[in-house]
Amino acid sequence: ITTKLPKVGTTIFSVMSALAQKHNAINLSQGFPDFPVDKKLTEEVTKAMNSNFNQYAPMAGFMPLREQIAQKTEKIYGISPNPDTEITVLSGASEGIFAAITATVRENDEVIIFEPAYDLYVPAIELQGGIVRYISLSTSSFRPDFEKLKRLISAKTRLIIFNTPHNPTGTTWTNEDLKTLDSLLEGSRILVLSDEVYEHLVFDNQKHQSVLSYPNLRKRSFAVFSFGKTFHATGWKVGYVIAPKELTAELRKIHQYITFSTVTPIQVGLSEFLKNEENYIHLADFYQQKRDYLCKLLAQTNFSFAPTQGTYFQLIDYSKISDQKDTDFAIWLTEKIGVASIPISPFYQNLSNSSAKILRICFAKNNKTLEKAIEKLSRL
Amino acid sequence: ITTKLPKVGTTIFSVMSALAQKHNAINLSQGFPDFPVDKKLTEEVTKAMNSNFNQYAPMAGFMPLREQIAQKTEKIYGISPNPDTEITVLSGASEGIFAAITATVRENDEVIIFEPAYDLYVPAIELQGGIVRYISLSTSSFRPDFEKLKRLISAKTRLIIFNTPHNPTGTTWTNEDLKTLDSLLEGSRILVLSDEVYEHLVFDNQKHQSVLSYPNLRKRSFAVFSFGKTFHATGWKVGYVIAPKELTAELRKIHQYITFSTVTPIQVGLSEFLKNEENYIHLADFYQQKRDYLCKLLAQTNFSFAPTQGTYFQLIDYSKISDQKDTDFAIWLTEKIGVASIPISPFYQNLSNSSAKILRICFAKNNKTLEKAIEKLSRL
Ligand SMILES: CSCCC(=O)C(=O)O
Ligand SMILES: CSCCC(=O)C(=O)O
Repeated sequence: ITTKLPKVGTTIFSVMSALAQKHNAINLSQGFPDFPVDKKLTEEVTKAMNSNFNQYAPMAGFMPLREQIAQKTEKIYGISPNPDTEITVLSGASEGIFAAITATVRENDEVIIFEPAYDLYVPAIELQGGIVRYISLSTSSFRPDFEKLKRLISAKTRLIIFNTPHNPTGTTWTNEDLKTLDSLLEGSRILVLSDEVYEHLVFDNQKHQSVLSYPNLRKRSFAVFSFGKTFHATGWKVGYVIAPKELTAELRKIHQYITFSTVTPIQVGLSEFLKNEENYIHLADFYQQKRDYLCKLLAQTNFSFAPTQGTYFQLIDYSKISDQKDTDFAIWLTEKIGVASIPISPFYQNLSNSSAKILRICFAKNNKTLEKAIEKLSRL
Repeated sequence: ITTKLPKVGTTIFSVMSALAQKHNAINLSQGFPDFPVDKKLTEEVTKAMNSNFNQYAPMAGFMPLREQIAQKTEKIYGISPNPDTEITVLSGASEGIFAAITATVRENDEVIIFEPAYDLYVPAIELQGGIVRYISLSTSSFRPDFEKLKRLISAKTRLIIFNTPHNPTGTTWTNEDLKTLDSLLEGSRILVLSDEVYEHLVFDNQKHQSVLSYPNLRKRSFAVFSFGKTFHATGWKVGYVIAPKELTAELRKIHQYITFSTVTPIQVGLSEFLKNEENYIHLADFYQQKRDYLCKLLAQTNFSFAPTQGTYFQLIDYSKISDQKDTDFAIWLTEKIGVASIPISPFYQNLSNSSAKILRICFAKNNKTLEKAIEKLSRL
């Protein structure tokens, strides 16, 4: 059988998590918390199962959950999407991204992405016959370059994908960045896919800047969010997309044939849990403490770093420690030192840009886990 | 925004379920049970959540679940797929079908399907630029015609999709049918997608015939199964695909970018529940009693029918009652009589073949529900 994705192997997240398990290493690779889900939330899911919420949810999502999402969005971003026509619940942010790309990208359409980039964008685009145009972020600041963006935009540009807070670098786009993009796209028919799954993980009194707050972006954007990241339950696979009515209609045409609907008792449980904003508004504080603690520990090692601005990922530079390529070094670190991380090069298409000696570690972990891991890293 | 699926609207299942709700009608349309999930199973899911099985499952599925699937398959079909390389757990059989089609169908490839057909096959094929070739089953027997199939097969044929037990007609393919297909495809490179989600719902002492039991089919087939159908939990969205190693590798390349992985605590709960075969081997008896009871009730109405051979769907012919087209009649029946069903024409592409006056009703319902519904139908 010939393959439709010749360039694709197993994702680096699966590879490193499996390697961590095999070598019994501390797993700071794949992004997931090692602390429990709030008991109040799991109890709501159990209650839903026991109340017979076990059959197909509506295709677009359990309506009380969509209503809670509308209220949360109003509270945080000051805009109130219509639950009936503008909010869709899907089986993880991944399905949302895949469905948005599949719904919009046609043969030979150009899609602009910023690299390093999360690994699902490119295969989804290529499956639709789209052509990826890359903007490389500088490996020093990882800031977007809007002059480069202007030059890449053409009549063929169908979609621009960006991600803030950014995986893997932790950088966040500023109000200025979004304003620049907003006016750049004014009057054009280009669509936007805004991956905002780490919306609640922004530190140092910054505020997450969502496309939802910018009128020219709002009307052309799919904004993608994740409950897994917000409620320490990455394995529950529930996310949502907010988009204008016409875009939502196209998204749903795809979603209804991919998974049709998303796990009902979890949707019901989330709809109850979301009623109390206390259940999510302190998340940035919680993770900022972890980041600060991690950085204090890292300062005692030979890794260089700048404290991450958002997400639960911290980049660390090992150029003082080794000359190995990042994938080789990440494997060595897992096998010999007992700490699994994610090398940064798999987030790049152009290998020439990936010579940076940088790893990504996930700090959504108990302090004890972080201590043990950094203790190992400090031997280098 | 231009659409990539111009022919697609909201699926008939969503339309009829919403209409049923609006008019407070008895909902025999969308296929889902109205009785509870086994308490032992929901307890296992709760236990999994409380034991912190809430983060990403492995991309291909929780390994103990895949092992249980291998054992179940061995017990039932006498073949033992390799959990590591031949079994993939996905977010519903739907995702399995979508991913298998996306993984294999290329621009201008031909895909042969038998209509009436489940509504997700065609959009998934067309999104990949594939061309659908239809074989219409006769509206009297709904039996496959292998002479027609032989004539449709060409050098362009990439994939043949079939479904047994069949939704919406309830017909099952016999040992003879599968043997015919098996020898027809011997030596060819055509792939097969076998939708077997109702594998446990086969009546009158027949046995479900799986592609897994036929050597020439097994080596070229994706066989798709569903826990939602087997455990009365259609809203949990967990299914699986069994396929040879090379096909599984391509399927997973797609799955890892659609949803990446499937809801962990439910996978863990299922892996425990599957250990006891008592939890699924009596399902055919359970549903056969329902079918027999339904048919007894239906015999007192003016609808004509032949008892269904499999699935939890029964076709009923209303030609003695009305001249309306099936979609109109189904809407009227929901609004005025208070019983929601599924018209058969949306399962056909060629409307000329859909002049049959046939509705599909779902009998995965409490006997009380069935009694109330048929009492209403008996007034006609
Ligand atoms: C879906 S596995 C990858 C999880 C994740 O978002 C990451 O580690 O970057
Ligand atoms: C995914 S909604 C449709 C459910 C179903 O399989 C059917 O009713 O035929």
